[in-house]
Amino acid sequence: MDRYLVLQGPNLNLLGRREPGFYGTQSLEAMHAELAEWADRRGITLEFHQSNHEGELIEALQGAEGRCRGAVLNPGGFAHSSVALRDCIAALDLPVVEVHLSNLHARERFRRRSLCAAVTRGVICGLGADGYKLALRHLMGEP
Amino acid sequence: MDRYLVLQGPNLNLLGRREPGFYGTQSLEAMHAELAEWADRRGITLEFHQSNHEGELIEALQGAEGRCRGAVLNPGGFAHSSVALRDCIAALDLPVVEVHLSNLHARERFRRRSLCAAVTRGVICGLGADGYKLALRHLMGEP
Amino acid sequence: MDRYLVLQGPNLNLLGRREPGFYGTQSLEAMHAELAEWADRRGITLEFHQSNHEGELIEALQGAEGRCRGAVLNPGGFAHSSVALRDCIAALDLPVVEVHLSNLHARERFRRRSLCAAVTRGVICGLGADGYKLALRHLMGEP
Amino acid sequence: MDRYLVLQGPNLNLLGRREPGFYGTQSLEAMHAELAEWADRRGITLEFHQSNHEGELIEALQGAEGRCRGAVLNPGGFAHSSVALRDCIAALDLPVVEVHLSNLHARERFRRRSLCAAVTRGVICGLGADGYKLALRHLMGEP
Amino acid sequence: MDRYLVLQGPNLNLLGRREPGFYGTQSLEAMHAELAEWADRRGITLEFHQSNHEGELIEALQGAEGRCRGAVLNPGGFAHSSVALRDCIAALDLPVVEVHLSNLHARERFRRRSLCAAVTRGVICGLGADGYKLALRHLMGEP
Amino acid sequence: MDRYLVLQGPNLNLLGRREPGFYGTQSLEAMHAELAEWADRRGITLEFHQSNHEGELIEALQGAEGRCRGAVLNPGGFAHSSVALRDCIAALDLPVVEVHLSNLHARERFRRRSLCAAVTRGVICGLGADGYKLALRHLMGEP
Amino acid sequence: MDRYLVLQGPNLNLLGRREPGFYGTQSLEAMHAELAEWADRRGITLEFHQSNHEGELIEALQGAEGRCRGAVLNPGGFAHSSVALRDCIAALDLPVVEVHLSNLHARERFRRRSLCAAVTRGVICGLGADGYKLALRHLMGEP
Amino acid sequence: MDRYLVLQGPNLNLLGRREPGFYGTQSLEAMHAELAEWADRRGITLEFHQSNHEGELIEALQGAEGRCRGAVLNPGGFAHSSVALRDCIAALDLPVVEVHLSNLHARERFRRRSLCAAVTRGVICGLGADGYKLALRHLMGEP
Amino acid sequence: MDRYLVLQGPNLNLLGRREPGFYGTQSLEAMHAELAEWADRRGITLEFHQSNHEGELIEALQGAEGRCRGAVLNPGGFAHSSVALRDCIAALDLPVVEVHLSNLHARERFRRRSLCAAVTRGVICGLGADGYKLALRHLMGEP
Amino acid sequence: MDRYLVLQGPNLNLLGRREPGFYGTQSLEAMHAELAEWADRRGITLEFHQSNHEGELIEALQGAEGRCRGAVLNPGGFAHSSVALRDCIAALDLPVVEVHLSNLHARERFRRRSLCAAVTRGVICGLGADGYKLALRHLMGEP
Amino acid sequence: MDRYLVLQGPNLNLLGRREPGFYGTQSLEAMHAELAEWADRRGITLEFHQSNHEGELIEALQGAEGRCRGAVLNPGGFAHSSVALRDCIAALDLPVVEVHLSNLHARERFRRRSLCAAVTRGVICGLGADGYKLALRHLMGEP
Amino acid sequence: MDRYLVLQGPNLNLLGRREPGFYGTQSLEAMHAELAEWADRRGITLEFHQSNHEGELIEALQGAEGRCRGAVLNPGGFAHSSVALRDCIAALDLPVVEVHLSNLHARERFRRRSLCAAVTRGVICGLGADGYKLALRHLMGEP
Repeated sequence: MDRYLVLQGPNLNLLGRREPGFYGTQSLEAMHAELAEWADRRGITLEFHQSNHEGELIEALQGAEGRCRGAVLNPGGFAHSSVALRDCIAALDLPVVEVHLSNLHARERFRRRSLCAAVTRGVICGLGADGYKLALRHLMGEP
Repeated sequence: MDRYLVLQGPNLNLLGRREPGFYGTQSLEAMHAELAEWADRRGITLEFHQSNHEGELIEALQGAEGRCRGAVLNPGGFAHSSVALRDCIAALDLPVVEVHLSNLHARERFRRRSLCAAVTRGVICGLGADGYKLALRHLMGEP
Repeated sequence: MDRYLVLQGPNLNLLGRREPGFYGTQSLEAMHAELAEWADRRGITLEFHQSNHEGELIEALQGAEGRCRGAVLNPGGFAHSSVALRDCIAALDLPVVEVHLSNLHARERFRRRSLCAAVTRGVICGLGADGYKLALRHLMGEP
Repeated sequence: MDRYLVLQGPNLNLLGRREPGFYGTQSLEAMHAELAEWADRRGITLEFHQSNHEGELIEALQGAEGRCRGAVLNPGGFAHSSVALRDCIAALDLPVVEVHLSNLHARERFRRRSLCAAVTRGVICGLGADGYKLALRHLMGEP
Repeated sequence: MDRYLVLQGPNLNLLGRREPGFYGTQSLEAMHAELAEWADRRGITLEFHQSNHEGELIEALQGAEGRCRGAVLNPGGFAHSSVALRDCIAALDLPVVEVHLSNLHARERFRRRSLCAAVTRGVICGLGADGYKLALRHLMGEP
Repeated sequence: MDRYLVLQGPNLNLLGRREPGFYGTQSLEAMHAELAEWADRRGITLEFHQSNHEGELIEALQGAEGRCRGAVLNPGGFAHSSVALRDCIAALDLPVVEVHLSNLHARERFRRRSLCAAVTRGVICGLGADGYKLALRHLMGEP
Repeated sequence: MDRYLVLQGPNLNLLGRREPGFYGTQSLEAMHAELAEWADRRGITLEFHQSNHEGELIEALQGAEGRCRGAVLNPGGFAHSSVALRDCIAALDLPVVEVHLSNLHARERFRRRSLCAAVTRGVICGLGADGYKLALRHLMGEP
Repeated sequence: MDRYLVLQGPNLNLLGRREPGFYGTQSLEAMHAELAEWADRRGITLEFHQSNHEGELIEALQGAEGRCRGAVLNPGGFAHSSVALRDCIAALDLPVVEVHLSNLHARERFRRRSLCAAVTRGVICGLGADGYKLALRHLMGEP
Repeated sequence: MDRYLVLQGPNLNLLGRREPGFYGTQSLEAMHAELAEWADRRGITLEFHQSNHEGELIEALQGAEGRCRGAVLNPGGFAHSSVALRDCIAALDLPVVEVHLSNLHARERFRRRSLCAAVTRGVICGLGADGYKLALRHLMGEP
Repeated sequence: MDRYLVLQGPNLNLLGRREPGFYGTQSLEAMHAELAEWADRRGITLEFHQSNHEGELIEALQGAEGRCRGAVLNPGGFAHSSVALRDCIAALDLPVVEVHLSNLHARERFRRRSLCAAVTRGVICGLGADGYKLALRHLMGEP
Repeated sequence: MDRYLVLQGPNLNLLGRREPGFYGTQSLEAMHAELAEWADRRGITLEFHQSNHEGELIEALQGAEGRCRGAVLNPGGFAHSSVALRDCIAALDLPVVEVHLSNLHARERFRRRSLCAAVTRGVICGLGADGYKLALRHLMGEP
Repeated sequence: MDRYLVLQGPNLNLLGRREPGFYGTQSLEAMHAELAEWADRRGITLEFHQSNHEGELIEALQGAEGRCRGAVLNPGGFAHSSVALRDCIAALDLPVVEVHLSNLHARERFRRRSLCAAVTRGVICGLGADGYKLALRHLMGEP
């Protein structure tokens, strides 16, 4: 089972249109396509899921346990407000790496706290789309 | 395209029953009917949407971009907790005016901060159902 | 109408697997079965609902008004983040008792504040699965 | 008695010169002239008063009670520092709507708290000069 | 040894006279009499103790260890100020459930923190006199 | 020189009309008349001054130094915001007692801090119009 | 029944020895003797009680209800820490004026908050031993 | 036009009498005379203005724009409370240097924040009367 | 007079049973016996007093003034809540060293502030039972 | 010039001995050796530098500008206290990625704020020694 | 001995390259050369020292005592973090004026507090390179 | 190996000259000489090290591990700012007792938090030079 979940939170479906200074100009579809190809070359399978619904993200993580070897989670704005997402990650036996496209430390004060971060493996932020590949490399044990 | 979105957040479907001291006694349906008629007289079309789901509100806003000339948003309790809604408004090319029926400044401390407000055009609060019409007037450029 | 709602918030579907130090080893299904039998012996009917969606919990509470004599709500992580849930409870004519399995006061700082608590009848926390029965006893007026 | 007070706080006499990014390029005189004409068409009379003195603003409000049907107050910087202005509004039998040209929520942190707001009818901010007309509409009961 | 301590903190001797909106109209004696009878029917013995002295409450708890199977503690105002009471509960091998008659979450801010709560089994608040019976049920293992 | 200044801050000219629950129903004129008569019987002279202008209050205090044996100051809302008034009191060789009609401790949080208080002789609050006489008694050395 | 309680909190038995810069050089006995004589001349009776025990102060207040027409309370350090004392004052039908010898506003930060103050009639602080007489004058209705 | 405004805030008219430990013993008149002579020798003209009125200081700054090449402002206590003064400085095209006689960093906590400072050129504090000359040197470009 | 007071605060009578990870396994009696013998060898006399009552600790300190050359005080939980104990130490002419068995800095946040510490000679914490001997050595002038 | 700086902050020379739960058991030398070999295979050169001196780390970064294509910085404890290090990174034309071995979000509160983070490209934390390679991949543009 | 120390903190060696918006384009060498010439014309000698090491700055100040008549210190980022530097200034008999090139009040929040400032003579900030000359003028007594 | 490190932080080389009210008049050399002699009499060896450099203190501690049986550390101002020093102590297998000459609790607010304290054995503060001997006694097991 060499399958990983790439889980995208709210508004990431706007990628490419949304504040390009922070998030770049590539669309989510393009980014996923590139990631899929990259994964393919390494013999792993990626499942992509984007949702603007907190509950759906929670259920996607719950559903990945046992089926996937790990998850890369960009919780978007839920990072700063969702105790439920945090509880989900803490409850599951599924390694999660949290990824943010932009450098949260250089933005508004309320973005500096991630409720999820404490219960993930670790966090990568500010490295743009690279963050997903780097997180996968860590989960695959091939840094 | 003289179409505007009137987007109502959580519990606004209870309008008329819910804490009338804060919110008045008119039901949401009655209020929407009155607004529709008012809009009709001014040659504009209103789309009404109420949801108790944060994700649904986000998607309603995303869907209005390009189709509507602006949105009047009463985010209800999400005003104080939803970074995702804020990110959505900031990402879209859609003028949004935030409306609250009650005067948030005269209520609990946690209602004083609106996460959304900073990325909207502006805020109208405490003026009851009038707030929607006034917000529309501003968006229509006919104060 | 001797019907009560037992409403379970996010991640409670993981009960038994999730952090057993805090939440015990009984599954949600087992707990509900035991509660149903207990209720049956006392001549009342329980409706069970679990959701990871804030909006769905709000709507379950809205739907119980008029149909149920009270609700036992375990808001899970939403207790600490959801103004919308609080507004819902404040708006309805439905007595609600908030229950938490674990003792929130002995955990992370952010779990000490429940936004909902101020508008419920009261709170029971830290007494494990007993909390549900005790809350029901209070609502039934048979402590 | 169809008379309303339009009360302008400190530095609003600089309008048009002052930080046009926040406040626009129209002078106070021009704005007042336009408002007067607008009011005239609707059969109401506006009294305009601008002052850089907290005490003078307080006295203008005290003097309007009984003579005017309401007041539109742009307290400028006093919004954030003047308990005396707040006490004045709370003491009078005069409906007051607070207006700010710029969106305070998008500016410095200390501008987010308005001491006056809690005792006014409500607040309109960020809608530029439109705010005055919209506030008057609410006071006139003709949204 | 089926004995439990019911320990009442400061001002609970005023019960019935004190702020009936929060505390009801039953006197402490009446409440204790009713509790004693209730306990009797269930074959357990209750020891009642009320004190306005922090030190006396501490010593009552110390004295119950080994003699009682558990304690129901209404610490009154000491909940919010007494580190000593907390240390006592933490030190003893005696299960304690904290009970408050009123819903502390709906009152002054300083009542929201209970120093004791973190070291008790759990807390019941806002359920009035029912709280004592419910706490005893939990301690007896008969919810 | 048995002369004392009774200095009244902003909105005290509204006394009797303003929030009678906090401030009573006697007008400022009536209160001053009663105080003058009371003073007369005790062989002292009172100077009364009310102003809504911070600067005028400062100058009244500056002008009293050397001429008056003490001052009774009700700074109204300036108590909570005026560093300038505080600096004035600290600078002068004039004993000042601060008086508030209402009990500030029982009102909004921002009323709990008086910037002036630390540099006055002391504070009397919550004792209504009695406060002025009691303050004068202290200044006269005839408690 | 023209009887009043003068209740002195912790360490006031050290008066005269304790930090004379704050508290003066008169002993508690001397001060009480002077107060008794002063009261005698006005046809009222004073009961004096000093205690270093929070519970004893609470009980002294409880015992005065119905017997005394009012109480002058110097809660000493308990003013800043005792929720129990506050609850007692709030529960009783006994007018209480809080007195502090020194000006708390000019001392350490933690002395600026009095938990009791909000539920007393009012507070006199910084006027030394005069405070007791002034408080009694207010309670007697003879300022 | 080699003219500069030297603007003195509240209580600076007390200079020489006021807390000499912080402010020295020279009167304001003497200081201004010495400054005028010093300016004269350097071929510049100084305008002196002192006011205890916030509004008057605002208007003095507004009046200096276009007429003066810069302003030295000692806002006194208004530095810590006046948003209106800050807004004025931000609005004008007039370089302002803020001067404080005493070292604010070594005094009360509330003196550490200057609302004005962020919108001036810079601040000189703690260097006594020298501060004015040094500020003028900077404005003249002759350090 | 080579007499010292060793004063033990609330719950120290539980020593040996209470959270041995923090407080060790020696009983208070055993510790006192060892200390008495140690003192005896050095020609000094120790008075031991333990109390769970704040007022009793205050009175023990008051009673030691003039009779003892110094006091070693373990205020237990009162360190963090008792202003009255602090006032007592500040009032007396008796050198006091504060001792805590455990390292308060490594425990809950609220244990980091000792109200008493500022008015004692100094504090020893985290060195277990050694702390008492070390404190006595300092008081005896024989480190 | 395919050269990168790997800069290690205070106590990283203890790696392998220091709190293995957080930092693993590999020594710094071993880790550097492995990294060097890894870099070699990719045709880049790494410069390693460890220092316990804030100034030395600043100078190492300053010295890398112009010579290296980027830097991987593990600032250790300086992340939370060094404004000087932050200023250095902000001043240089050198891309820096901040790496932490442990997940700072899961540790003490003061570790949650990194002063440096806001001025780096981004941050990787919690992924152990993998962090260095992932950061280098990003800097090399080969994720 | 007409000798003064000009002490430059961390990263000031980058002057001219570092964030020119805040710090200007002149290099440290050029600035020092200009200062030396300026000093020379006034018959005083300047010693220049720049260091990125907190300890070295401390030792430079310690070494100047007795040899120099005063010091101009630009502590750079250490202003906000170094208690040790503050203690050094407080300990020495050497007048120190703190200088910052940029206006700290207009930058990040953490730059608003200078630990050193309270123990220096005073602070000049925001006046660019002029600050050094102005500080020297004050120390020389020739403003 | 009966060797102990006595490690002195920044500015302790100024001992005797520096703020004698806090630190006494004995020089560091004199104090070390006295300590050495004292140690000699007890058959132990002391190594003395003073540094104004955070990095040097860290390295001194690292170097003592394995060679010394314990360390007495006076971190001076670094106690309040150095996470690196804390990490060092936490990492080493070396018992450390933290000593401060003055009573930090009676000084500025920022001195009340010691970052190091939580990871040392314990803290002695306010007992002057005695602190070093008392700390050594604890480390030697001969209180």
